[in-house]
Amino acid sequence: MGASSSTRDRILEASLGLFNADGPASVSTHRIAAEVGISPGNLHYHFRSKPLIVERLFIRFETQLQSSVDASMSVMAIDDLWLTLHLTFETVDAYRFVFRDIDQVMRGCPGLEERVKALTARCLAASKASCASLATAGVLSASESAVEMLAVQFVFGITCWYSFNRLMPRPSAHYGEAARGAYYCLSLLEPHVVGEARDYLNYLRAKYLR
Amino acid sequence: MGASSSTRDRILEASLGLFNADGPASVSTHRIAAEVGISPGNLHYHFRSKPLIVERLFIRFETQLQSSVDASMSVMAIDDLWLTLHLTFETVDAYRFVFRDIDQVMRGCPGLEERVKALTARCLAASKASCASLATAGVLSASESAVEMLAVQFVFGITCWYSFNRLMPRPSAHYGEAARGAYYCLSLLEPHVVGEARDYLNYLRAKYLR
Repeated sequence: MGASSSTRDRILEASLGLFNADGPASVSTHRIAAEVGISPGNLHYHFRSKPLIVERLFIRFETQLQSSVDASMSVMAIDDLWLTLHLTFETVDAYRFVFRDIDQVMRGCPGLEERVKALTARCLAASKASCASLATAGVLSASESAVEMLAVQFVFGITCWYSFNRLMPRPSAHYGEAARGAYYCLSLLEPHVVGEARDYLNYLRAKYLR
Repeated sequence: MGASSSTRDRILEASLGLFNADGPASVSTHRIAAEVGISPGNLHYHFRSKPLIVERLFIRFETQLQSSVDASMSVMAIDDLWLTLHLTFETVDAYRFVFRDIDQVMRGCPGLEERVKALTARCLAASKASCASLATAGVLSASESAVEMLAVQFVFGITCWYSFNRLMPRPSAHYGEAARGAYYCLSLLEPHVVGEARDYLNYLRAKYLR
């Protein structure tokens, strides 16, 4: 962060880094203050408690994720979808503590539980809309129930890919996790893709698959 | 547990319940001792530290999951798969803290990380084998790369379904989470299923889908 950024922003940036590394439950406000290079008293002046920091970061995450979700609403071709999936996974990656440590987040900030569920519901609706519009555009051949299932699989991928990835033997990939997460979601379309879109999917597979 | 079960078993049962409810990081050995109705000293005699309890529970989980994994190796029809998926999800449900709180587990017991990854790898191999044998039996029409992808999706479902479910708006289902998780995995086959197996899948859908 530049010297001009406000103390409040520096606190949020430092907290985000520490939460992503160790989970909010393991990070004390003293450690955050030390990381920013301010006194615990100064931190307390900006944020009375850790849950208020978690909440503020969640709201930033929610806003940023919402903009990828909105973008996915206007998907007309498979490369549009590829781009919005990338943006979505980059956002989830930047705030990876949110979904990974969702229990800690909800336990610390019980008020967030309903917002998290509402966010999931919006992601589900947007994923369904984008798959349905690909079906209308003739890119996918998928029944209504297949579109419904694809939407669930997409949101499962978006929310839980990073959790899953920790369980996997370490990959030798050149690409970051966001790209691999996005690729995982895109390949869910495979059984339904028709025509030229299939070639594009094969091109991406050659590029991203180990 | 009956009166005849050993103190050691009662400690493990009580710990499992508390870990499933609140996560191993939030459960102290004092609380476990109180739950069992023994002194902290007696607990310490049986298990010197909490990580030893976590480790012992993980080994039980691993053994039980391995037996479902072994069963999936001999899958020849879609209802065999349905059964093994049920058994698998019931095991994951019984020890739900393991995958849900995997960060806490690995942080507390660094020695388990490699075992967790090896377990994931075995699940992946078993899922691939069962999908491949369904393809050979003519139940699925799926290329080698489709089988590979199905296996990843299955293991993603097995390991992360409970994490995902916490993010979803509360479902009104009559069925337990294990059944819904198993149903989720089974419906991943939908685009590939051919012949009579499709009717069976439709029957299950009518039964399990909200």
